[in-house]
Amino acid sequence: MAITVVGSVAYDSIETPAGRKDRCLGGAATYFALAASFFTDVRVIAVVGEDFGAEQEAVFHARKIDIDGIERAEGKSFFWEGSYLENLNEAKTHNTELNVFAAFNPKIPDAYRDSEFLFLANIDPVLQRRVREQMPGVKLVAGDTMNYWINDHRPALLEVLKGIDILLINDTEARVLASNTNLVKAARGVMNMGPRMLVIKHGEYGATLFHKPVEGRESKTFRAPALPLEEVVDPTGAGDSFAGGFFGYLASQPALTPGTFRRAMFYGSVMGSYACERFGTERLQQLTRKEIDERFQAFRELTHLD
Amino acid sequence: MAITVVGSVAYDSIETPAGRKDRCLGGAATYFALAASFFTDVRVIAVVGEDFGAEQEAVFHARKIDIDGIERAEGKSFFWEGSYLENLNEAKTHNTELNVFAAFNPKIPDAYRDSEFLFLANIDPVLQRRVREQMPGVKLVAGDTMNYWINDHRPALLEVLKGIDILLINDTEARVLASNTNLVKAARGVMNMGPRMLVIKHGEYGATLFHKPVEGRESKTFRAPALPLEEVVDPTGAGDSFAGGFFGYLASQPALTPGTFRRAMFYGSVMGSYACERFGTERLQQLTRKEIDERFQAFRELTHLD
Repeated sequence: MAITVVGSVAYDSIETPAGRKDRCLGGAATYFALAASFFTDVRVIAVVGEDFGAEQEAVFHARKIDIDGIERAEGKSFFWEGSYLENLNEAKTHNTELNVFAAFNPKIPDAYRDSEFLFLANIDPVLQRRVREQMPGVKLVAGDTMNYWINDHRPALLEVLKGIDILLINDTEARVLASNTNLVKAARGVMNMGPRMLVIKHGEYGATLFHKPVEGRESKTFRAPALPLEEVVDPTGAGDSFAGGFFGYLASQPALTPGTFRRAMFYGSVMGSYACERFGTERLQQLTRKEIDERFQAFRELTHLD
Repeated sequence: MAITVVGSVAYDSIETPAGRKDRCLGGAATYFALAASFFTDVRVIAVVGEDFGAEQEAVFHARKIDIDGIERAEGKSFFWEGSYLENLNEAKTHNTELNVFAAFNPKIPDAYRDSEFLFLANIDPVLQRRVREQMPGVKLVAGDTMNYWINDHRPALLEVLKGIDILLINDTEARVLASNTNLVKAARGVMNMGPRMLVIKHGEYGATLFHKPVEGRESKTFRAPALPLEEVVDPTGAGDSFAGGFFGYLASQPALTPGTFRRAMFYGSVMGSYACERFGTERLQQLTRKEIDERFQAFRELTHLD
C-alpha cells in the first residue's frame, strides 16, 4: 500500500569527524522516502526552489518515488548547515534558511488521495495538521517532531498529536514532551496525548516501541537494537531513515499484527544504520534489498538467544 | 562450579529521587555475591570493620554465601556516600572513607582455592593482581574497574588486564580506557590489552558483549537490553548485580558455548534490573529464582521477533 509523506526536501552542509560535505541533497522527506521505497510505493509532498533540478529529481526517480507532489517555487530550497564534531548523537546547527519553506502550503495531488499510509515528517505542526485533515481516509498515520515544536509550538503540536497513530521521537523529545525523565512514564504521558503507539529512538542504542494498553490485552513493549558501527560517517537522516524503514515495512504487509510491528522496528534500525555509513543520502541511493535483508539477519543474531 | 569474588563489603548512604537511606549494606562484592548466589556457590574475600556484625552476616548466610574469607579488622568498614538526584545513570560521590580497606591485603582461605571462577570486583588493580596470582588454576577470570583506576593507576591496571578473560565496564570507562569514542573500536582496543571478551554496560539501554576475533571463526557481538523500568528506586550496585548474574550463570553451566554467554548476558540484565527496584541490596535479598526466570522470559519477549 502506498505511503504519502509530507516534509522537507532540502540541501544540507554537514561536518563530521569523517569530513565535510557541502549542499548535499537532504531533508526529512527525502531520507524517509528513499528508505521506505525499498518496501512500498512512496509519494512526496514538499516544496523546493529553483536550485532543485534534474540531478536531484533523478535520485527520487531511480527509486521510483512519486514526486508530483513536490511543488517548485521561486527562490532557494530549504538549507541546513550543521556539525557532529563533539557528539555523533546530536547535531549542532550552524545555520537554517527556510527559504521557499517559509511560505509552504502543502497541496495534495488527487493521485495521492488513495494512499492508505501517511507520514508527517518533522515540520511545523500546523502544516502537519493541514495535510492530515486533507487525508481523512488513511488507514495509519505516523509522524515525527522535534524540540523546537515541542517547546515553542506546543498547542499546535498537541492538536496534531490527536490525529497521529504512531509518533516517532527520540529520548530527549519524549522526556520534554511529557515533562518526565523516566522513559516508561514519559511514553505513557505522550500516548495520553493521542498516539496509540510511540517509538522512542535511542540513537546508537536502538529504539523502543510502546503501545497504549488495550483493554483485555497485555501491552508488550519491544526494543530493537542499533548496530554497533565501527564508523559513523554521517548520522544526518538516520532517524528519518529509521521511520522510512519502519513505516515502509508496515505499509508493505497484508496485516498489522504484533509480529509485523516488531519486524518493522528491526527494518527501521536496519535503514537507520545504513544511512550513517556515508554522507547524506549516498548509502541509501546505492542500497539493495539483499543488503537490507542481510542486515536484518545480523540484527537477529545480535539480539536473539537461539 | 564455585566463584571466588574479591571486592568491597561496605556501608552506603544513598540519596535518589525516591528517597534517602543511610548506612545500608553495600559494596561491589556484596551485590555481586548476592546476585551470583542464585546460580552457584559464592565465596567472598574482603575486609570489614567492627561495625560489621551478626545482622550483616545473616544477609550472606541467608543466601548460603561463604564469608570465611571476609577478614575482620580494627576500625570501621569502607563507607561511601552518594546521590543520583540529577542523573539516575551516574552517581555523584559525596564522601568516600576507605577505613579498614586502606590496609587491605587479600588472603585466600585454603578452602577457596579449588574455585574455578574468579571475579575481581572494582578495587585497586594491585590487589586484583595479587588475588589473581594466588589463584593460577582458575578456569575463567572476570573483572571490573572504574575511571579512577583507568586515569590514575593505569600501569597497574594494564598489568592486571593481562590476566583477565572477561572485563565488564561501562561506556565511558571503555572509551577512556581505549582513548576512542567509537564503541566498537574502543572494544577492540580494550581487548588488545588482554581480555578476550568485553562486556560494555550501557545503563538503561542494556549491555553489549564483544569477543576477540578467533582465527577461522566469525566473532559475534551480542546485545542484551535493559528492562524499561517505571521506577528506578536506587541504581547503586546494578552493575555489580549484572556481573553477578552474568558470571554466576556461566559458572552454573556445564559448557561455555556461545549460547551460554548470550543467556548469561540476559541473566546479568535481569539481576541488574531487580537491583534497582529497592534501596541497597533489599530487592536481591528478597528475590526468588522463579522471579528471575520470569524476568528472563520478559527480556526474551522484549527483544525477540517471534
